[in-house]
Amino acid sequence: MSASERIEMSGHIIDSGALMKLMDTIMDLGGDFEIQEQHYGRRKEEPSYVRLEVRAPTGKVLEQILLSCQSLGANLSEATDVHTVPAPRDGALPDGFYSTTNLRTEVRINGRWIGAQDQEMDLALVVDPEREAARCTPMADVREGDAVVVGHHGLRVTPLERAREREVFSFMRSEVSSERPKQLAIAEIAETMRQIRQRRGKILFVVGPAIIHTGAGPYLEELIRSGYVQVLFGGNAIATHDVESALYGTSLGVDLGTGMTVEGGHANHMRALNTIRQAGSIAAAVEQGILSRGVMYECVRHGVEMVLAGSIRDDGPMPEVVTDVIEAQRLMRRCVQSGVEMAIMISTMLHSIATGNLLPATVKTVVVDINPATVTKLADRGSFQVAGLVSDAELFLSSLAQALTAR
Amino acid sequence: MSASERIEMSGHIIDSGALMKLMDTIMDLGGDFEIQEQHYGRRKEEPSYVRLEVRAPTGKVLEQILLSCQSLGANLSEATDVHTVPAPRDGALPDGFYSTTNLRTEVRINGRWIGAQDQEMDLALVVDPEREAARCTPMADVREGDAVVVGHHGLRVTPLERAREREVFSFMRSEVSSERPKQLAIAEIAETMRQIRQRRGKILFVVGPAIIHTGAGPYLEELIRSGYVQVLFGGNAIATHDVESALYGTSLGVDLGTGMTVEGGHANHMRALNTIRQAGSIAAAVEQGILSRGVMYECVRHGVEMVLAGSIRDDGPMPEVVTDVIEAQRLMRRCVQSGVEMAIMISTMLHSIATGNLLPATVKTVVVDINPATVTKLADRGSFQVAGLVSDAELFLSSLAQALTAR
Amino acid sequence: MSASERIEMSGHIIDSGALMKLMDTIMDLGGDFEIQEQHYGRRKEEPSYVRLEVRAPTGKVLEQILLSCQSLGANLSEATDVHTVPAPRDGALPDGFYSTTNLRTEVRINGRWIGAQDQEMDLALVVDPEREAARCTPMADVREGDAVVVGHHGLRVTPLERAREREVFSFMRSEVSSERPKQLAIAEIAETMRQIRQRRGKILFVVGPAIIHTGAGPYLEELIRSGYVQVLFGGNAIATHDVESALYGTSLGVDLGTGMTVEGGHANHMRALNTIRQAGSIAAAVEQGILSRGVMYECVRHGVEMVLAGSIRDDGPMPEVVTDVIEAQRLMRRCVQSGVEMAIMISTMLHSIATGNLLPATVKTVVVDINPATVTKLADRGSFQVAGLVSDAELFLSSLAQALTAR
Amino acid sequence: MSASERIEMSGHIIDSGALMKLMDTIMDLGGDFEIQEQHYGRRKEEPSYVRLEVRAPTGKVLEQILLSCQSLGANLSEATDVHTVPAPRDGALPDGFYSTTNLRTEVRINGRWIGAQDQEMDLALVVDPEREAARCTPMADVREGDAVVVGHHGLRVTPLERAREREVFSFMRSEVSSERPKQLAIAEIAETMRQIRQRRGKILFVVGPAIIHTGAGPYLEELIRSGYVQVLFGGNAIATHDVESALYGTSLGVDLGTGMTVEGGHANHMRALNTIRQAGSIAAAVEQGILSRGVMYECVRHGVEMVLAGSIRDDGPMPEVVTDVIEAQRLMRRCVQSGVEMAIMISTMLHSIATGNLLPATVKTVVVDINPATVTKLADRGSFQVAGLVSDAELFLSSLAQALTAR
Repeated sequence: MSASERIEMSGHIIDSGALMKLMDTIMDLGGDFEIQEQHYGRRKEEPSYVRLEVRAPTGKVLEQILLSCQSLGANLSEATDVHTVPAPRDGALPDGFYSTTNLRTEVRINGRWIGAQDQEMDLALVVDPEREAARCTPMADVREGDAVVVGHHGLRVTPLERAREREVFSFMRSEVSSERPKQLAIAEIAETMRQIRQRRGKILFVVGPAIIHTGAGPYLEELIRSGYVQVLFGGNAIATHDVESALYGTSLGVDLGTGMTVEGGHANHMRALNTIRQAGSIAAAVEQGILSRGVMYECVRHGVEMVLAGSIRDDGPMPEVVTDVIEAQRLMRRCVQSGVEMAIMISTMLHSIATGNLLPATVKTVVVDINPATVTKLADRGSFQVAGLVSDAELFLSSLAQALTAR
Repeated sequence: MSASERIEMSGHIIDSGALMKLMDTIMDLGGDFEIQEQHYGRRKEEPSYVRLEVRAPTGKVLEQILLSCQSLGANLSEATDVHTVPAPRDGALPDGFYSTTNLRTEVRINGRWIGAQDQEMDLALVVDPEREAARCTPMADVREGDAVVVGHHGLRVTPLERAREREVFSFMRSEVSSERPKQLAIAEIAETMRQIRQRRGKILFVVGPAIIHTGAGPYLEELIRSGYVQVLFGGNAIATHDVESALYGTSLGVDLGTGMTVEGGHANHMRALNTIRQAGSIAAAVEQGILSRGVMYECVRHGVEMVLAGSIRDDGPMPEVVTDVIEAQRLMRRCVQSGVEMAIMISTMLHSIATGNLLPATVKTVVVDINPATVTKLADRGSFQVAGLVSDAELFLSSLAQALTAR
Repeated sequence: MSASERIEMSGHIIDSGALMKLMDTIMDLGGDFEIQEQHYGRRKEEPSYVRLEVRAPTGKVLEQILLSCQSLGANLSEATDVHTVPAPRDGALPDGFYSTTNLRTEVRINGRWIGAQDQEMDLALVVDPEREAARCTPMADVREGDAVVVGHHGLRVTPLERAREREVFSFMRSEVSSERPKQLAIAEIAETMRQIRQRRGKILFVVGPAIIHTGAGPYLEELIRSGYVQVLFGGNAIATHDVESALYGTSLGVDLGTGMTVEGGHANHMRALNTIRQAGSIAAAVEQGILSRGVMYECVRHGVEMVLAGSIRDDGPMPEVVTDVIEAQRLMRRCVQSGVEMAIMISTMLHSIATGNLLPATVKTVVVDINPATVTKLADRGSFQVAGLVSDAELFLSSLAQALTAR
Repeated sequence: MSASERIEMSGHIIDSGALMKLMDTIMDLGGDFEIQEQHYGRRKEEPSYVRLEVRAPTGKVLEQILLSCQSLGANLSEATDVHTVPAPRDGALPDGFYSTTNLRTEVRINGRWIGAQDQEMDLALVVDPEREAARCTPMADVREGDAVVVGHHGLRVTPLERAREREVFSFMRSEVSSERPKQLAIAEIAETMRQIRQRRGKILFVVGPAIIHTGAGPYLEELIRSGYVQVLFGGNAIATHDVESALYGTSLGVDLGTGMTVEGGHANHMRALNTIRQAGSIAAAVEQGILSRGVMYECVRHGVEMVLAGSIRDDGPMPEVVTDVIEAQRLMRRCVQSGVEMAIMISTMLHSIATGNLLPATVKTVVVDINPATVTKLADRGSFQVAGLVSDAELFLSSLAQALTAR
């Protein structure tokens, strides 16, 4: 083993499984380790500490291992300043660039540890040495010459520690299954929402068009009116079907009052799009009195920050839809970074995964979908903060609205 | 075309698609037809009538075609008496036996049309010429020498006609999807249940253990207490987990009050089984005061007819479980034939399909499952009486109980 | 019934179910009809003809009905010229605009029937009266003053007639289920592909990243090299994971040679993106010898027309990705209209639905996905040309490549 | 903390996560612990050892904790003999009975450690003190007065240790997903099968009827003829559809040669049942030359041990079907205990779960289903020996047969 380095880890590292995962990772990646110092808390209240010498056959493997260890919260024992290399061209990074996680990260600049801004995973870390600042930056937004962090030196990642107390976000994540009691989860989600609103935190809803098709729109409207929705992400489809429902009482041609397919009503969504495009925008249609109910209407009326992101499936689209996806990401990112503490994602795989990519690990996230595969994908973000519910969007929203507004 | 026969069909045969399906079927099976007489209603209130000469290359193909036509409601123009052949041995049928459908069927005996008893699909028709009676009989229950109907002569099948009025059982079947409004369907199901109970009809619930795991047991208990459940079919699992929940507050080791897994609670279902086996039976445990809440308790207390059918997955099993599956079918059949007008099947593919096989097409059936594949399988019974809901069992039962008991 | 109009329909309208569907539709929408002339083919080779007087309570309902009838292939008996109204502003249509179907449509201009160009559903029909031409035009591409078709006059839609001969596209659509023999379907798909290539038709593949994750990339590469892929639609993900696989042997950090997760290999997809962004483009990376294997490489080498459409989930993205979704639609549309005769869509709901929206009904389409819901959504396009296979993308592609290249 | 006990654990307990899980479990159940002795291997080759004092608020909680610890492989430091209590009646156990796991278990009788026979989970442990033997016994088979183990004393459970070497059974279990390379897994499954057959071990196939519907029967027949199937578990459906396919070329009325539905062919499965019931049994039909191809035929011809277990969905049933489910379990258990080293379960949730319940943790198990939920349920048996493949049964069997017979 020709290369070695010392790392250390402390905290509730046995209880949380972090130590086990660390040892596992080192060995899985072809490395080896020797425990040099160890102190285990004898009782659950006491933290533990361990220092390992990690060895690997080559320097390249060692670097791989150290990066993986870092993402688990094991950092190098001997701190040095972070290394940076200038970006070779606009939108491209130097080789060996450090790819961020969604965990709180600090960077050592001029001997001082600085917290990175806008924490988000799979981004580059760009350092401003003069202002002693570091910011998580999308590859596409890096400019030639920016000081981009490379390697694993001078970085410190803080793992999320699992709360042992009973809470929805711990109990739900244990298993993604439709065969779990949901009314309990819904009650706890409602309680969390209340607390967040009491301290003026923001709640983000990410929603798919099934909400409209199933007639659950009015529950979401109720939540907006009651102040439980500050930000809303969706696509052209939910906007179109919501407007279709507001104007014609149908969604994808299904009459929401009777559940019957209205033959030819299929064209209603094109008419809805055209009506708004004639008016100029959804907001203009509200102002002109053309649109006077529905989710979009309530969002406009209650000042909900809204990003409608485009996709290649879109008809129309609605004027508010941001058709450039990179621009849509920028707008979503800005909303997320403006104080969102909780994200509730319902019946949309595309927008939910896109949003999940942008969220720091500290944002409490609830994913609701009737398809277990969608919930599993979202809930597997390596965060203790994600609760996955395999359930029915309509009945979930109905129960949530009842839990929040009946009190 | 060496073989031919005349068939006729009447009623709302254009509107219902029956005529189209008939022509299609003849051609798909390699036959041909010539329309000999036709009278189409000019308006939707008027019935139509058509008589076709059906031709086929061989007598065997013709018979195949005629059987298929019959199951669509097209019967031979010239009526003859039914043909029978004695069963060759106990539990076996003569070659060429007629396999029943779940549609109302009449048999021509001594020149008179007699309705078959115990209509059910995939059975044999056994005729008692002296009593001028015919009964749908499972293959296993046929005795050597029984007069078993063969071929297609002397049979008349009445197709279900679709009601054009808006009703849940027509609108729901149009599409099996989670993306349809369910609160409407639930309201209409509740209304149908009320009507059936007003005329003292019986309602059958077929239920899987997920009802207990998700904490939805109390909603089902409420429906039992309110008189909306006369018959209950299930397996060992729902009984076991219900008793586990009543005795220990857990289901499969998950605490239903907190949603947390109780480590080691996994053994609770074995303890529940043992407790009942010690008492002798579920009913005995209720009597002895050992079991004083839950679905099983309410069934015992309110005289719900119950069949718990065994499966090879079973632990224990509970003493009431009928471990012989053919015997279980017999008991289920007897319950179904004693006046069941509606069947509500929730979260159990095995018991739902088994029950679906036993039901005549006239029983209104609701299938609820979070897995679209289960709903599709059940809803595809060629009956207008099946409403499939892709939804969450817990939230469905909660809404249904609310709709029925809140009024 | 205050409004009425005469429509007629001819062809194999009983056999195909079209007549039944027509009568059904009229009544479902609240209309009534009287058959005024009818001639039914007595044998299956003979076409039928029917003329109906359709009545409705209001002119508005009648128009609704006529539009629905038209989409089934029943056209007005008395032909008049098409009506147009100028578009009120760029990107918006006049009220009452006609929304297209994916069926061949003719427009009557100056007394002559002209075939519409670029047939695609949910678009507007813009007429150029001087050149006596009509073109299906996306709402967003309509310019103020364009002559847009309104109402239902002067339009003729030709329904697809079902081929009664046995072919994969008829037999597969009968049921979307994993429980059907697939080797047969694969053999017939392969045969169809061979025929299309013999007459120099184009085959379009629409592919998701699971193809790479499952190690099925090499099968697709083989199909490209063998000349069975002329156009490829996908997203940033398949491009990224394909390049990741070509450069590092992993896909999403899973080693494709061993199936083991390479810890830390998670960052490989970011490195792959960066490598290509440094090179400037995928094509440039191929030219520079940086990228020398994989699906993208083969596409570049064999001149496959490629549209990589952006989505809000994208990291990077790859330089070739079209980040504006409306622009991406335009490029996809252009490819589709340049002679695509068959579309094979594998493991991507987003791109498959987007592509399905653009295809005329005559393009033979195969949808392969392990999730039945995706297949159902795609296969429900009201076309006899869609074959849905619920299957495993990897094993499907392996079998298809074997069927096409082993001969 | 009024109750305490000492437990110890040794082996690769850090690497395998066992120690972490142990500490976690103690705390989750409301206990506390103090590490009294600890020795951690410094390198991965070295085993570790730890002794803990476990404390709990009550004796009852402590017992709960100790039972859970035991199932993780942490046993009491001070060994005493096992405690037994006589069974109170036939088919019922004493209170506090010990419920088995599927891990190798030893019982201390008269100061000596004896391995329990017929290891299987959720059974009682019945001791024969004179013969110094212990056997895992189903609740239903316990007789009044049998010496049944209660509590946690005198028991030693050996946890499965994870092999760190790359093998299909470790890599596959990491994630149940359709998005993983399967050809690799299939190659390794084939290799494992070859090795087992070289040492004359038995391979069990558990199969559902979809194998026949999809036309994959011939691949299974090939595996039988090549000696890769010693035991086969299934139900009435696979037997019926296999015979239907052998006699009429259809499965559930679908022609397996063309994939077309043969209208009326629906009755073929009833005719198949009747043909075999007339003959007396499947074996008799083979002998009489009535059945001369198919899976059942090959099983009879090659002496495959077969258990066809009944279910309430069954028509007929086939004479070989064991209609009593408890008797069917007994027969399955006997087969499993006669040397089965590997179980391959394809497309049957019911029979797969039933079989999974009977298998000791040492049997290598492969679960193949197109529905991820089925695979997840089966793969979650807490064993490193289960590989779950979300895939297509037909294409899986085709690839497996090719991998095994092409060499």
